[in-house]
Amino acid sequence: MGVKKTVRAEILAIGDELLYGQIIDTNSHWISKELDKIGVKVVQKTTVGDNREAILAAFKAAEMRADIILMTGGLGPTNDDLTKPLLAEYFNCDIQLVPEALEAVRTFFEKRGRELTELNKLQAHLPTKCTYIQNEVGTAPGMWFEENGSVWMSMPGVPHEMKRLMEEFVIPKIKEIYTLPTIYHKVIKTVGIGESWLAEILKDWEKNLPEHIRLAYLPSLGQVKLRLTAFGDELESLQNDVEDQILKVMPIIEKYVFGYNQETLEEAIGRMLKKTGKRVAFAESCSGGYISHLVTSIPGSSEYFQGGIIPYHNHFKNKILDVDNQTLSEKGAVSEETVIQMAANVRGLFEADFGLSSSGIAGPGGGWAEKPVGTVWIACAWENGNITKKLQLTQDRILNIQLTAVAVLNMLRLVISGKTE
Amino acid sequence: MGVKKTVRAEILAIGDELLYGQIIDTNSHWISKELDKIGVKVVQKTTVGDNREAILAAFKAAEMRADIILMTGGLGPTNDDLTKPLLAEYFNCDIQLVPEALEAVRTFFEKRGRELTELNKLQAHLPTKCTYIQNEVGTAPGMWFEENGSVWMSMPGVPHEMKRLMEEFVIPKIKEIYTLPTIYHKVIKTVGIGESWLAEILKDWEKNLPEHIRLAYLPSLGQVKLRLTAFGDELESLQNDVEDQILKVMPIIEKYVFGYNQETLEEAIGRMLKKTGKRVAFAESCSGGYISHLVTSIPGSSEYFQGGIIPYHNHFKNKILDVDNQTLSEKGAVSEETVIQMAANVRGLFEADFGLSSSGIAGPGGGWAEKPVGTVWIACAWENGNITKKLQLTQDRILNIQLTAVAVLNMLRLVISGKTE
Repeated sequence: MGVKKTVRAEILAIGDELLYGQIIDTNSHWISKELDKIGVKVVQKTTVGDNREAILAAFKAAEMRADIILMTGGLGPTNDDLTKPLLAEYFNCDIQLVPEALEAVRTFFEKRGRELTELNKLQAHLPTKCTYIQNEVGTAPGMWFEENGSVWMSMPGVPHEMKRLMEEFVIPKIKEIYTLPTIYHKVIKTVGIGESWLAEILKDWEKNLPEHIRLAYLPSLGQVKLRLTAFGDELESLQNDVEDQILKVMPIIEKYVFGYNQETLEEAIGRMLKKTGKRVAFAESCSGGYISHLVTSIPGSSEYFQGGIIPYHNHFKNKILDVDNQTLSEKGAVSEETVIQMAANVRGLFEADFGLSSSGIAGPGGGWAEKPVGTVWIACAWENGNITKKLQLTQDRILNIQLTAVAVLNMLRLVISGKTE
Repeated sequence: MGVKKTVRAEILAIGDELLYGQIIDTNSHWISKELDKIGVKVVQKTTVGDNREAILAAFKAAEMRADIILMTGGLGPTNDDLTKPLLAEYFNCDIQLVPEALEAVRTFFEKRGRELTELNKLQAHLPTKCTYIQNEVGTAPGMWFEENGSVWMSMPGVPHEMKRLMEEFVIPKIKEIYTLPTIYHKVIKTVGIGESWLAEILKDWEKNLPEHIRLAYLPSLGQVKLRLTAFGDELESLQNDVEDQILKVMPIIEKYVFGYNQETLEEAIGRMLKKTGKRVAFAESCSGGYISHLVTSIPGSSEYFQGGIIPYHNHFKNKILDVDNQTLSEKGAVSEETVIQMAANVRGLFEADFGLSSSGIAGPGGGWAEKPVGTVWIACAWENGNITKKLQLTQDRILNIQLTAVAVLNMLRLVISGKTE
């Protein structure tokens, strides 16, 4: 095989609301993930406002960098949306009613028993140079252009509408048009060790990586991902090269590794629980339901998630979870003794194999010298015993909730896999 | 007052992990929100990879568009980080050890009882043209440049480190350097009505907005924000102009409005509960703890949040929440009768004023003809009665969980404010 030309893409997000920080752009992130999977190299992500000059300049700059330009936003029925008229201006064409598009919008509204507004009818008027791409789950259509040596796709900013257009049209179309180069990524997912310490224990292995394999450290909340990227011609040999490196590195980091690629910690735990046929329940005080939410966000979690209790006050820790009033008054809600009883009793109440608990001071209020904000106790109880851990986290309430969840899920992972020692 | 010059900023996020979609860039969003607050206009957000040419080109392009260039990422101790050497190259200067920076890194590690690694020591080597800005909560320092007619700040990609540098140094510094123009934003937050329908009922009011006030519709999950932006010289007169428009529009949309600006639905509910001295508890089946999580993510929520139960199986709906076994077997878990009992009984168990419940088929599995995926029942019970609602949501599990939470919180809002009729 010869050297394949890299296919380069740029993602363009349009809307004042993105520049003013009113909403967060999750679309660009999702699109880049999907392009990465098929070997298209995203070279830049650009966000511009609802401003004629800025949008036209972004079209021009993107066209010079990229073969594929994927844009989201600026297509709504309201007056501040400019993408469509500017695409027509940029490609020097008119905007006309597309009867097929009008029919689709009409059907969309009929199905929902709603009347078509005048504003919605405007959404069926499209630049004459575009290919109309039906949006099955919304009213703003997709528009595909092949102009100025690049391909262009304009999509609505509503995430599930954009995703549907990407999955059903854009990705298949890109695969059809381009011969894509061979890139192979594998991500090793770790929890319970920081980036610097990981880099330190891995430095010899990293130094000896072959030329065509690159390593990146991607830290996030309480976790670090190690991404290996191999470049070459044949997918199978790239996969083998990466697997060889993983075999070498695993003895060093095995204790911290919970999974690979897109698998989240809560998915890994689901996989482990399903495999062992075990069930789990949570008693969450400071984490306030967040751990149960993470676990139940996974399809099929009803197989292993029994339920949870959020006893936000001592009175309910006693009344519903049967924690000793004496323990609560003498040791306090944020104590090793309390979290042990919470874990053991939620396990009993929900007839689970593992009971886990959290109790702490999430902040910003409520701390004192002995137990400052960020002090959290967690526990896991099972048939023959329990383990506990004290965490000293941050001043930030949300961060404390999230880090508590990671620590509890990691504790469960270590218990299930017998790695607690 | 004369016409003030608009101060323009560009936000530059650096890192392959952002282009490959491995992590989501929350930094750029947060920075743009903060700049907006002080009247700095963000003209573009750009994301580039760990690539010399792309980063240098991004510096050059940003410098032409913006007075202020704020960059995050590419500063870690690992080998794939390029921001620092490229800043030195771009500004044509050396990199030297800054003793003050080394001292700060050393202290940072000492406090945590960890040993300084060789990699970490490298973080104290900085371009000679930069002003060293201490990072109090991490090891990668901030770097401030005043070069080529723009000001530049390089910050680490770790969100809480970046935020600290922004709040303690960058924002005060920008206010000191520039005379900022007067912009006034106010956002009206609505829930329970879609963008198109809102635009339809508001079209006359929108048409009559004065020239210097702009309106934008910002839809998100089950909510639409209406952002009014006024441009001018005097803040007070802009505020008055916007308030006048809000007085005009409120009679049309009052039922849907829960708050203003950054206030979230869960914050608004917290405010309403505090004001009325009422308390709340949740019984969450399909929402799996997510509603309790949203409510408890708000500081001070222990004042009004009593607790929650997540009874993920019929057995526990009966055992812990005392839902009739007959109701469960005859009507099913996803039924009006079940959610009424769940709401009333969680209210009793947690001694709350309001009990709320959800039960539904979040998907992707578990649906059937009569109750397809996305069928959800919700209820609210109080001393004198209850209300219920059936939702027909989507095929997407996460979306169904989130939309259920919005619907339950909106139901609580309507009950507290007596707007249920």
